[in-house]
Amino acid sequence: MKVLVIHGPNLSLLGGRDPDVYGRTTLGQINDMLEERAAKMGHSVKLFQSNHEGEIVDRIIGEADWAEAIIINPAAFTHTSVAIRDAIAAVGIPTVEVHLSNIHAREEFRQKSLIAPVSVGQISGFGVRSYLLALEAVGKLSPKK
Amino acid sequence: MKVLVIHGPNLSLLGGRDPDVYGRTTLGQINDMLEERAAKMGHSVKLFQSNHEGEIVDRIIGEADWAEAIIINPAAFTHTSVAIRDAIAAVGIPTVEVHLSNIHAREEFRQKSLIAPVSVGQISGFGVRSYLLALEAVGKLSPKK
Amino acid sequence: MKVLVIHGPNLSLLGGRDPDVYGRTTLGQINDMLEERAAKMGHSVKLFQSNHEGEIVDRIIGEADWAEAIIINPAAFTHTSVAIRDAIAAVGIPTVEVHLSNIHAREEFRQKSLIAPVSVGQISGFGVRSYLLALEAVGKLSPKK
Amino acid sequence: MKVLVIHGPNLSLLGGRDPDVYGRTTLGQINDMLEERAAKMGHSVKLFQSNHEGEIVDRIIGEADWAEAIIINPAAFTHTSVAIRDAIAAVGIPTVEVHLSNIHAREEFRQKSLIAPVSVGQISGFGVRSYLLALEAVGKLSPKK
Amino acid sequence: MKVLVIHGPNLSLLGGRDPDVYGRTTLGQINDMLEERAAKMGHSVKLFQSNHEGEIVDRIIGEADWAEAIIINPAAFTHTSVAIRDAIAAVGIPTVEVHLSNIHAREEFRQKSLIAPVSVGQISGFGVRSYLLALEAVGKLSPKK
Amino acid sequence: MKVLVIHGPNLSLLGGRDPDVYGRTTLGQINDMLEERAAKMGHSVKLFQSNHEGEIVDRIIGEADWAEAIIINPAAFTHTSVAIRDAIAAVGIPTVEVHLSNIHAREEFRQKSLIAPVSVGQISGFGVRSYLLALEAVGKLSPKK
Amino acid sequence: MKVLVIHGPNLSLLGGRDPDVYGRTTLGQINDMLEERAAKMGHSVKLFQSNHEGEIVDRIIGEADWAEAIIINPAAFTHTSVAIRDAIAAVGIPTVEVHLSNIHAREEFRQKSLIAPVSVGQISGFGVRSYLLALEAVGKLSPKK
Amino acid sequence: MKVLVIHGPNLSLLGGRDPDVYGRTTLGQINDMLEERAAKMGHSVKLFQSNHEGEIVDRIIGEADWAEAIIINPAAFTHTSVAIRDAIAAVGIPTVEVHLSNIHAREEFRQKSLIAPVSVGQISGFGVRSYLLALEAVGKLSPKK
Amino acid sequence: MKVLVIHGPNLSLLGGRDPDVYGRTTLGQINDMLEERAAKMGHSVKLFQSNHEGEIVDRIIGEADWAEAIIINPAAFTHTSVAIRDAIAAVGIPTVEVHLSNIHAREEFRQKSLIAPVSVGQISGFGVRSYLLALEAVGKLSPKK
Amino acid sequence: MKVLVIHGPNLSLLGGRDPDVYGRTTLGQINDMLEERAAKMGHSVKLFQSNHEGEIVDRIIGEADWAEAIIINPAAFTHTSVAIRDAIAAVGIPTVEVHLSNIHAREEFRQKSLIAPVSVGQISGFGVRSYLLALEAVGKLSPKK
Amino acid sequence: MKVLVIHGPNLSLLGGRDPDVYGRTTLGQINDMLEERAAKMGHSVKLFQSNHEGEIVDRIIGEADWAEAIIINPAAFTHTSVAIRDAIAAVGIPTVEVHLSNIHAREEFRQKSLIAPVSVGQISGFGVRSYLLALEAVGKLSPKK
Amino acid sequence: MKVLVIHGPNLSLLGGRDPDVYGRTTLGQINDMLEERAAKMGHSVKLFQSNHEGEIVDRIIGEADWAEAIIINPAAFTHTSVAIRDAIAAVGIPTVEVHLSNIHAREEFRQKSLIAPVSVGQISGFGVRSYLLALEAVGKLSPKK
Repeated sequence: MKVLVIHGPNLSLLGGRDPDVYGRTTLGQINDMLEERAAKMGHSVKLFQSNHEGEIVDRIIGEADWAEAIIINPAAFTHTSVAIRDAIAAVGIPTVEVHLSNIHAREEFRQKSLIAPVSVGQISGFGVRSYLLALEAVGKLSPKK
Repeated sequence: MKVLVIHGPNLSLLGGRDPDVYGRTTLGQINDMLEERAAKMGHSVKLFQSNHEGEIVDRIIGEADWAEAIIINPAAFTHTSVAIRDAIAAVGIPTVEVHLSNIHAREEFRQKSLIAPVSVGQISGFGVRSYLLALEAVGKLSPKK
Repeated sequence: MKVLVIHGPNLSLLGGRDPDVYGRTTLGQINDMLEERAAKMGHSVKLFQSNHEGEIVDRIIGEADWAEAIIINPAAFTHTSVAIRDAIAAVGIPTVEVHLSNIHAREEFRQKSLIAPVSVGQISGFGVRSYLLALEAVGKLSPKK
Repeated sequence: MKVLVIHGPNLSLLGGRDPDVYGRTTLGQINDMLEERAAKMGHSVKLFQSNHEGEIVDRIIGEADWAEAIIINPAAFTHTSVAIRDAIAAVGIPTVEVHLSNIHAREEFRQKSLIAPVSVGQISGFGVRSYLLALEAVGKLSPKK
Repeated sequence: MKVLVIHGPNLSLLGGRDPDVYGRTTLGQINDMLEERAAKMGHSVKLFQSNHEGEIVDRIIGEADWAEAIIINPAAFTHTSVAIRDAIAAVGIPTVEVHLSNIHAREEFRQKSLIAPVSVGQISGFGVRSYLLALEAVGKLSPKK
Repeated sequence: MKVLVIHGPNLSLLGGRDPDVYGRTTLGQINDMLEERAAKMGHSVKLFQSNHEGEIVDRIIGEADWAEAIIINPAAFTHTSVAIRDAIAAVGIPTVEVHLSNIHAREEFRQKSLIAPVSVGQISGFGVRSYLLALEAVGKLSPKK
Repeated sequence: MKVLVIHGPNLSLLGGRDPDVYGRTTLGQINDMLEERAAKMGHSVKLFQSNHEGEIVDRIIGEADWAEAIIINPAAFTHTSVAIRDAIAAVGIPTVEVHLSNIHAREEFRQKSLIAPVSVGQISGFGVRSYLLALEAVGKLSPKK
Repeated sequence: MKVLVIHGPNLSLLGGRDPDVYGRTTLGQINDMLEERAAKMGHSVKLFQSNHEGEIVDRIIGEADWAEAIIINPAAFTHTSVAIRDAIAAVGIPTVEVHLSNIHAREEFRQKSLIAPVSVGQISGFGVRSYLLALEAVGKLSPKK
Repeated sequence: MKVLVIHGPNLSLLGGRDPDVYGRTTLGQINDMLEERAAKMGHSVKLFQSNHEGEIVDRIIGEADWAEAIIINPAAFTHTSVAIRDAIAAVGIPTVEVHLSNIHAREEFRQKSLIAPVSVGQISGFGVRSYLLALEAVGKLSPKK
Repeated sequence: MKVLVIHGPNLSLLGGRDPDVYGRTTLGQINDMLEERAAKMGHSVKLFQSNHEGEIVDRIIGEADWAEAIIINPAAFTHTSVAIRDAIAAVGIPTVEVHLSNIHAREEFRQKSLIAPVSVGQISGFGVRSYLLALEAVGKLSPKK
Repeated sequence: MKVLVIHGPNLSLLGGRDPDVYGRTTLGQINDMLEERAAKMGHSVKLFQSNHEGEIVDRIIGEADWAEAIIINPAAFTHTSVAIRDAIAAVGIPTVEVHLSNIHAREEFRQKSLIAPVSVGQISGFGVRSYLLALEAVGKLSPKK
Repeated sequence: MKVLVIHGPNLSLLGGRDPDVYGRTTLGQINDMLEERAAKMGHSVKLFQSNHEGEIVDRIIGEADWAEAIIINPAAFTHTSVAIRDAIAAVGIPTVEVHLSNIHAREEFRQKSLIAPVSVGQISGFGVRSYLLALEAVGKLSPKK
């Protein structure tokens, strides 16, 4: 299975400036874990981070012929990007939305996801493990009608 | 790890009357899968289904000394039970909320969970696999402050 | 036709403490009327009252193989029970919602029914006759898709 | 008992252009059924359809001395006509509101009736039978204070 | 005066698992205090705790002939139970609503009580003393019209 | 000054069926008073009642060259008619809105007027005298820009 | 008839700094007009202006034995003062609310009056004449029950 | 193609009283333009204006067998008429909604159209040209399912 | 313990004009009861009534060094005064909010208190006894952090 | 006339992956049609697609001296981009908003356009023809004040 | 330049009871700083604090002929006083609103200012320096139209 | 002190096309003023404008090790960018939000800032001087916890 992993805005800061809030694991380490785990499972992954909504849309469209599944942590774009929502819906690739923190326990405006209604499912609150659980979930997805 | 698994109202109907909506896997089969997988992971599980909010509260309190983690599919109570929310918060046992369907893609009133803000995290949309992913997530939980 | 009649919470008080508000007809008398009328129409009825949401869900599921139609006065649960709504939707038995009083003329929060959208229809405001009209309506129902 | 039956806007289309949505029973046939049934019950009926809110108000006022009960299917005016509501309240004749479809299972804006709070009761969702049930209900009404 | 004291869901946990949040006084001790104080005042009390909405409704109805006043801490049901509200209104026994914490200083959804509009009054925020103040208040109640 | 007086729906019932609610003064008597008073003030009046929104719009447009002021009691149309609002705004004749009852003390939906924002002013709550006060107010109006 | 006339905050500025907005008539001139007109009608008036909500409440209470009617232009307090509302309701003196401008054509927050529901009626939009119309209206008021 | 063109309330005033707001083109001239253009395109048109919601509903139903497309400028009824919406949906004739002004740049209550959801499309803001663009759009419509 | 008792606007009317609504006990009698009861409990009280928000703020600040507890019936200011809320929060003196009537059973706008979130607790609905219960509650308060 | 045509996010997918939803016409074909039609009308066009809000803003500003009109299909940005709205308003070039589908018949959040209030008009629901109608509309625009 | 500086309710407590919340700078010291800085800039200042909304309105009106600019920290009145808003608008003196804390980061109800829409600008969040920045801003103001 | 100054979308248009709205000062001139003033104060500044949300996020992150303070005029992104909000919160650099116009006096949707809650403070309404005041404010900031 070919999996496109997308990290949204500000996630490059993980493991950096403020370990109390963002933990000590860097985005590089998360990517290493994902590659290693994917390899074990026989999946191939492409990993991508951007602070630009447009680049994420470009990438989803650009990988539409390669990717068989998408794992996306839309971060701030979770709540503001109709464009990413439309891209996911348009390419028709089964998508899993992940969040490091439990968004349902945060500010009111973070509890509503524009991405979730076009995703297969959502996993939130397990830190780095949210990504690994998503990878596991992805293995058995069938293309969304 | 000792894990209490709670199935909310109407879940006894799984695999039964309407396979198109509820799939062909029965609750018994889900429970078997959970026990088998838990055994492999070295966890012990207690499995419980009820259509009664009060029984679920009773059970959470009653197992508070035994359980080290809770996996709960609150079903209809997700959106209506402050009592279950308070019970989870009161016993202080780390809890994972699961849903078979992607609640964020359903009716407006199903998109808001009263349980999520007191849970560690939420996994929704992966059918029976939502439970198995939760079991995996549970292994590394540390008690919630 | 086999009809399950469900009376929701507090309806056991009918005809009792406060005749000005609740009339002088007791729940027993309503049940007698329903049985008599059903007999004349060639229907068989099972009659059930509970103050417990869980028992009503249990009963709907428990009678799912027997019942061909449901008449339910959900009383207070009209506005709060997603679990009963889900039970009715899950068993797929055509259901008629009845109310003694005209709920559309009462407090704002009583004007919205969680049960109505999964029912065939709603009859409200005719006192004890609401039940008898429902019995009549039930005769020509075809199973809801 | 003298009963004024009012059919609101677009109901002249029943049984016509689109039988899948509007059934195969025409308004003429509904009126025939109502007259026949009323005759059996010893009621006399006047039948009236209009696409004009003002004509319906005129008619309610005009028949205020003749009519002892009103059966109204306000159709689209259910949700928009304060004038019909005020007319019903002003003449003080007991009124039953009927709907062919279950309005509580339709678009949000169709779930709120301006007419219901000044009616004795509401019957919705039973197709043509909604009218016949209303006729039955009407027999035992006492004038609304 | 005969007083029915009702403790809502999760209150059996008082004084237990998390003394920082729930204090060190157990429900048993609260009940002892209430009995002792009531005895001094010449009242007799019945004490009851349940996590089941239905049991609380059953009890209110069941004690309707005995009780002359009700003191209720509805806990989580404060915000969700129309059934308990209807039971209190139906039996017509003067009722005092109590809360250990100041619900008006908690989450938005806890600031609205479904029970308060049918109660004589509300006392919230004084910990265990809320119950004792209620007992005092109860002495001079006259039956609610 | 030439004054067009418009009475909205159901006002023909004044003084009739229910004197407790609608008083004992008929619409005919109100019109007589208005004509008499207008004559004394040197105004000429045209008096018009309709239950049809369209007729009221027709009349406003039709009298646009004659009328120098409009006094309108829009009754139920106060809250529902954008068409009457647009007609008043389009003809540019200074208009006074009157109400027999104090609409600000009635149901929530009656407290918002669609007509008031395009009127010079509003007089409500003084019964028949609301019309006479409006006639007085009209005398000194200058055309609205 | 003894009439207390109350002018709310900022009305002392009338006729002053900005004639385009506030006209050229000063509050003193309005008071003169009111006294002269009242004298002709055989009423006696007391005139009072304050920028202090508390002084207006004090005055309403203080004149409760003298005044037979109140005319109040609450100005900014229209939308913010529950205290003045409660005072008017408590003294039980029939009250007419007036506004110089048409408040229903201004900002959203100015279209809702806290005072109107406890007043006999409201007159708004006729400039200085609003007061004179109120004086006329006052003559025929009977004490509010 | 046979096209029914419907002009809603107050549009007979176009080109008349207030040219700054309504332009200098009269409704007659618009109709002439529409007929001329339709003739060139080989369409036949019927042109109709009414201030009566009921007449518009009557006409839509009355022309349902003749018309192959509808162009409607519902004017004030855009925001208030469920009856016209239901008529358009019931006859199943493809409909284009037009507006002279850009309704999305006007008052909040004018930005929501009840008609648009049952129309093929909406053209607003181009003055008289909105109608001509609609005529062009109509040529290639296929019947709406 | 030194207790500052504050009576909000219009409370000087108690026992006066309208005994049906406001009872027959005057504010003077309430103050006497409070002084007598306080004396028995060994508390000293200062009693204060004002219709001026500013005077209440002045007094809270002015007595901040003397008072060890505050009992306040904010009356109309309950729902409108951020200034009193801020004063209570700023001086840090434990405060009990009381109401004669059950505010939770009154108009919607009276059910929300701006004062409650900065108070220790709220007692409402017990008439004059609300004050006496507050005095009792005050005895065991510890300073709010 | 010089016309800048802007296609918003995901429109490069037209005619591609999912012909049932997006039709069989590609963006290239739409652009060809636009160029051909513009040439016939004597307009010159620049065509531009981007998934990046910032690039669209850049382009509007960058072409501000060249363009005499803008046709924009903002797609997902219709509902989220204040920046594009501000750019259109700032450059003061008359703009027509187009949509392939009828946005007023889609999800609630797609029915509100941030762009429409600063546009001359909106054309939605005619598929590819929406663009061609816009081109026609553009010919007679005069610069917006 | 002549500057009126107004401190709203509770600001006399600054530097006092609770230094952690209110800092150690007293209102007297703030006033000294403002006078010293103003002197250096060649401005003259009048300084005024009140807990009474009415006194602040009185003062704004009373100094309307002297003051050329107003700096106001409305504190609690920011969110409740239409009267102060109207006073500022009426006297037409350019006004700067200041806040010690960042009101946009506090409770929801503190994030909306009634004063800001009639002010030139708002400075919030810089503690005592908010006042000094306002003084600087004031130097270049021109009278607001 | 090292200060990063960020200008949001469309600000490159300042002083350009429409001097009445945007003034005559260009962004280049603003930047010159800021550099000159900063030099005098001993601060060093980096100046940056972008119409791309992503570039602004990139820059905040990219300068996180250099910058000791941020001054940002987020323009349109004020109301839509959670990503910029998260970036500012994540890098933990004290930030001042500035606006040329008084956003609190503009359209409803411009009155809510997503950026303000993570900023130290906000300065709005003083035109170019808003930036200079921010520079002054920045001098005494201490790092935000």
